[in-house]
Amino acid sequence: MQPKMSISEVTVFLRQVFPQIDDSFEVLEIGPMRAKVKMLIDHQHIRPGGTVSGPSMFALADVAYYIATLAMIGPEALTVTTSCAIDFMRKPAHADMWAEARVLKLGKVLSVGDVTLYSEGQEAPVAHANLTYSIPPK
Amino acid sequence: MQPKMSISEVTVFLRQVFPQIDDSFEVLEIGPMRAKVKMLIDHQHIRPGGTVSGPSMFALADVAYYIATLAMIGPEALTVTTSCAIDFMRKPAHADMWAEARVLKLGKVLSVGDVTLYSEGQEAPVAHANLTYSIPPK
Amino acid sequence: MQPKMSISEVTVFLRQVFPQIDDSFEVLEIGPMRAKVKMLIDHQHIRPGGTVSGPSMFALADVAYYIATLAMIGPEALTVTTSCAIDFMRKPAHADMWAEARVLKLGKVLSVGDVTLYSEGQEAPVAHANLTYSIPPK
Amino acid sequence: MQPKMSISEVTVFLRQVFPQIDDSFEVLEIGPMRAKVKMLIDHQHIRPGGTVSGPSMFALADVAYYIATLAMIGPEALTVTTSCAIDFMRKPAHADMWAEARVLKLGKVLSVGDVTLYSEGQEAPVAHANLTYSIPPK
Repeated sequence: MQPKMSISEVTVFLRQVFPQIDDSFEVLEIGPMRAKVKMLIDHQHIRPGGTVSGPSMFALADVAYYIATLAMIGPEALTVTTSCAIDFMRKPAHADMWAEARVLKLGKVLSVGDVTLYSEGQEAPVAHANLTYSIPPK
Repeated sequence: MQPKMSISEVTVFLRQVFPQIDDSFEVLEIGPMRAKVKMLIDHQHIRPGGTVSGPSMFALADVAYYIATLAMIGPEALTVTTSCAIDFMRKPAHADMWAEARVLKLGKVLSVGDVTLYSEGQEAPVAHANLTYSIPPK
Repeated sequence: MQPKMSISEVTVFLRQVFPQIDDSFEVLEIGPMRAKVKMLIDHQHIRPGGTVSGPSMFALADVAYYIATLAMIGPEALTVTTSCAIDFMRKPAHADMWAEARVLKLGKVLSVGDVTLYSEGQEAPVAHANLTYSIPPK
Repeated sequence: MQPKMSISEVTVFLRQVFPQIDDSFEVLEIGPMRAKVKMLIDHQHIRPGGTVSGPSMFALADVAYYIATLAMIGPEALTVTTSCAIDFMRKPAHADMWAEARVLKLGKVLSVGDVTLYSEGQEAPVAHANLTYSIPPK
C-alpha cells in the first residue's frame, strides 16, 4: 500500500485545517504506513527544569500519527483520536524532537499504531505511544 | 488519609513551578485522594470544528492528577507523569471544562489513578484517562 | 437507559457462547451502564507467591466489561475487545475477586468504559482498567 | 548491553518459578533488549469462532515482556507487571502465535517497552501492547 499524499500535500492540508499548529511541526518523511515528523521546540513547550512538557509530547505523538494515517487514506479532516496510551521514559533535553509513526492496522473505521518520540542529541527514545484514530465514513 | 495542602497552597505552588500554566487552570476542590480542577477554554485550546483539542484535554487530565497527588504528598515539584492512557469519548463543546481526579493507589514510588473530563453543559463525560506519576525519593 | 438483559439472561447467554468460562464467573449485579461480576479463584488463577496472575485479572476485567455492555445492547456475541489499558496497583490475596464495570460511552460502534478490580478482604482496589469494545453492525 | 541469561537459562528459571505456564511457551530468541517467544495454542486458548481469546494474548504479551526484561537483569522472580495497554487489531487464526518484545527503557526501578503479537500464517500483526514492569530493589 502506497501513501495517497506527498509531504507537500500533507503540509498544505495541515495548514488549512489546523492553522494554529503548522509552525511547530515539519513533515520530514512519508512512506507506506509510516511518517516522520519534527517538532520545533520553543518556550511554549518547555516546563521548569528545561525539559519538554508532557502535553507537548502528546501533541507531537498525536500529530505524527494523524499525518501517517492521513497520508494513507487521503485528506479526511474529521479523522479524530479515540485513544492514546503514552509512556514517558526519559527526560527530553531542551532541543527539537521528532516522532516515528507506524500504522499497524488500517481498517475502514479505525487506524491503530504507535509512535516513538526522540529528542535531538539523545539516541534512546524518550516516549512511546499507542494511538487509535477513528476514520469517518465516506 | 487527609490532604497535606489546601486549594490556596496548591495554587501558589503551581504558580511558582509552572508559571506558564496557571492562567488556564483553577483548583475547585481538594479532598482525600481526589481533586476537581477547571480549565478555562480560550482560542489556544480550540481546534477547527469549534471543539477542544486532544493535547488540551491531555493537559487538563495531567494537571488535575498532578494536583490530586501533590495535595496528598506535599509540594514535590519533581513528581512526573510516567504514563497516561486516555480515551476520547465525546466531542466537547467550545466551553470551559473540568476534571475529577481520583488517586486509587498512593505508594512510595508511584501514584496511580484516573481522571474523568467534563465539558460545561454536557452531562456525560467527554474523556477518561488512567495516569501514573512517579514520586521522587526524599 | 435501562439494561435489556437480566442477570439470568446474561448468565445463560454466556454459558452458550463461552462454555469454557462460565464456571469461574458469577454475575452479581446488572444496572444501567454497569455490572458487578465475581471471579471464583482456584489453582489455575494463582501464580507463585500465592497471588492471582495478571492474565486472570485481565480476564475478569474483560468479562465484566463484556457483561456490562451486553446487558445494555442485548445478546451480540461478536462484540469484541479492541483495547484495554490496565494498571496493577496492589497484590491481590489468594481469595475470590470481583469487578465493578462502568460503561462511560455507549455509541453505535464502540462501547468505552472502565473496570475496577477488588480482592475479597482488601478494601482498596487491586487493579483498574480502561476498555473499549467494538459493537458489530446489525 | 548484552543479555545476562541465555535461552536455556531463562527456560529453566521459568519452569521453576511458573510451573503452570512452561508447557505453552517456548523461548525462540533472546538478544540485547529483546526476546521472541512462541505460544503453542490448544483448546484452553480458543474462544468460540475458532479464534484465540483476549486473555491468552495478554498472557503471551506479558510472558514475552517478562522474558525480555529478565534476560537483561538476571533472575528476579519478583519483577511484576505494573501496567499494560493492549490493542487487539486483527482476529488471530486457530494457530500458534509468537511475540516480539522490545525493551525501550531499562531503568533501576522500571522496565518499559512493547510487544507485537503475530499469528502463524498471517503477515500482519494481530495485537500490540505497551508494558511496564516494576523491578524489585536488590
